[in-house]
Amino acid sequence: MIDVITTVTAMKAYVKAIKQRGETICLVPTMGYLHAGHLDLMREGKSLADHLIISIFVNPTQFGPNEDLGKYPRDFDRDKRLSEGVGVECIFYPDASEMYPKGYSTYVNVEGITGKLCGIARPTHFRGVTTIVAKLFNIIEPDVSVFGEKDYQQLVVIKRMVGDLNMKVKIIAHPTVREEDGLAMSSRNKFLSPDQRKSALVLSHALIKAKGLVKHGEYDAAKIRQMAIDMISSTPEAVMDYVEIIHPDTLECIESIDSKAVMALAVKVGNTRLIDNMVLK
Amino acid sequence: MIDVITTVTAMKAYVKAIKQRGETICLVPTMGYLHAGHLDLMREGKSLADHLIISIFVNPTQFGPNEDLGKYPRDFDRDKRLSEGVGVECIFYPDASEMYPKGYSTYVNVEGITGKLCGIARPTHFRGVTTIVAKLFNIIEPDVSVFGEKDYQQLVVIKRMVGDLNMKVKIIAHPTVREEDGLAMSSRNKFLSPDQRKSALVLSHALIKAKGLVKHGEYDAAKIRQMAIDMISSTPEAVMDYVEIIHPDTLECIESIDSKAVMALAVKVGNTRLIDNMVLK
Repeated sequence: MIDVITTVTAMKAYVKAIKQRGETICLVPTMGYLHAGHLDLMREGKSLADHLIISIFVNPTQFGPNEDLGKYPRDFDRDKRLSEGVGVECIFYPDASEMYPKGYSTYVNVEGITGKLCGIARPTHFRGVTTIVAKLFNIIEPDVSVFGEKDYQQLVVIKRMVGDLNMKVKIIAHPTVREEDGLAMSSRNKFLSPDQRKSALVLSHALIKAKGLVKHGEYDAAKIRQMAIDMISSTPEAVMDYVEIIHPDTLECIESIDSKAVMALAVKVGNTRLIDNMVLK
Repeated sequence: MIDVITTVTAMKAYVKAIKQRGETICLVPTMGYLHAGHLDLMREGKSLADHLIISIFVNPTQFGPNEDLGKYPRDFDRDKRLSEGVGVECIFYPDASEMYPKGYSTYVNVEGITGKLCGIARPTHFRGVTTIVAKLFNIIEPDVSVFGEKDYQQLVVIKRMVGDLNMKVKIIAHPTVREEDGLAMSSRNKFLSPDQRKSALVLSHALIKAKGLVKHGEYDAAKIRQMAIDMISSTPEAVMDYVEIIHPDTLECIESIDSKAVMALAVKVGNTRLIDNMVLK
């Protein structure tokens, strides 16, 4: 039977018992509504430590005032069944008042890289992410924690926080898991109508095409970017938020793809904002 | 022999060895130039855990652009001798580039209570304090850490951070240590000329007088505050920064001293900014 823990105090006691036996913990933080991408992260997590704990918490501080906090999909019973199936031992499942009690006022913020890409449309998003992840790390004390590369900027921001604040946990990046047709898995894909679902393929198609261009010797980032922008603008119901070709660590825009480069993009399909990215080189 | 450790990596290895033996750590963070108040904190710290570690680090992020970072007093050899005398086993003594390497960009911030009192004249001060203390807690993993009540707002801010971020460490408040004539001990007292040293007594004298008034039934905070303001304005070279009567936890100003109240004040004596506080009730 999987343990479901809803309070910080109980979770800390659970962790303390593991630590006293000198055993290790892997944490996979999630917002629930699990898909095959999450389960893949958990399978990797299972191999990395003695104990696999996940958290399920739809974190209000990472949603902006006009975003989809209220309608973010939730199905705890299904999540519990799925995570049990991949060997999760314990789910930390607190409610918002447990994590942000009255008078709550402390935030962890990574400056600079959080102002780019998704940080432009979502200026308070990463502050919410780093704050909740710092809290989860303090409560669960993981030796290792796994994050998906699909949320590429989040991964870079978390790594920066862990390095800057000298946290003990090791961050593992897990490759993006895709549907058969290439769409990156996301809990938000469920919001897409059948037609929008087809339009959503423009993200992965643009990335694959960009990678192909680089492979064939096109190093001009502006040209590759324009190709992707054209693809998006000719796709029904798709509106570009950003398309950028960036350095994988600094997230600075790159002009010429001479060395390591990642293409990252965000596209609104109907009301659903989707993101994806791919290493170009 | 006391151990002096200057790198994060070496400090973490030192801590790991202690933790593997299941032993506990007390951390007393300091900016060095130790005085009897620090040593008193250390003596208490010594009694609270198996190992006593102190840090000496003049933290640049808690100084404003026009403050006294450059001339903050330093004397490591003396600090080492003094701390060895009270049983400190290890000094963590990093330089600024070790704590804030190139590209550093993560800050911990407690909102609300950091905008009052000292936060008005020093708007980035507490962000620097919480950031460095969070880093020290992550590096040294103390079970307990001792802070002086002299820096009362700092103490409240640190407690709030620890609670909000679910940190494991227990924060102990140590009573303000005073010179024989009542002046609160501070590394900055060394900047005072003999005449300024006399003027500096206005801080503790105003607090003692306020406490006396409350004891004799004066509950009107405005009247007590005015008494202190008058005392300061009639003192040579003394300029009031603030005088407030506050709730000990929220730091909100109080109008009537019906229940718990602390008086806190900051006064510039010459170029030296001094703070002090006292429980009125």
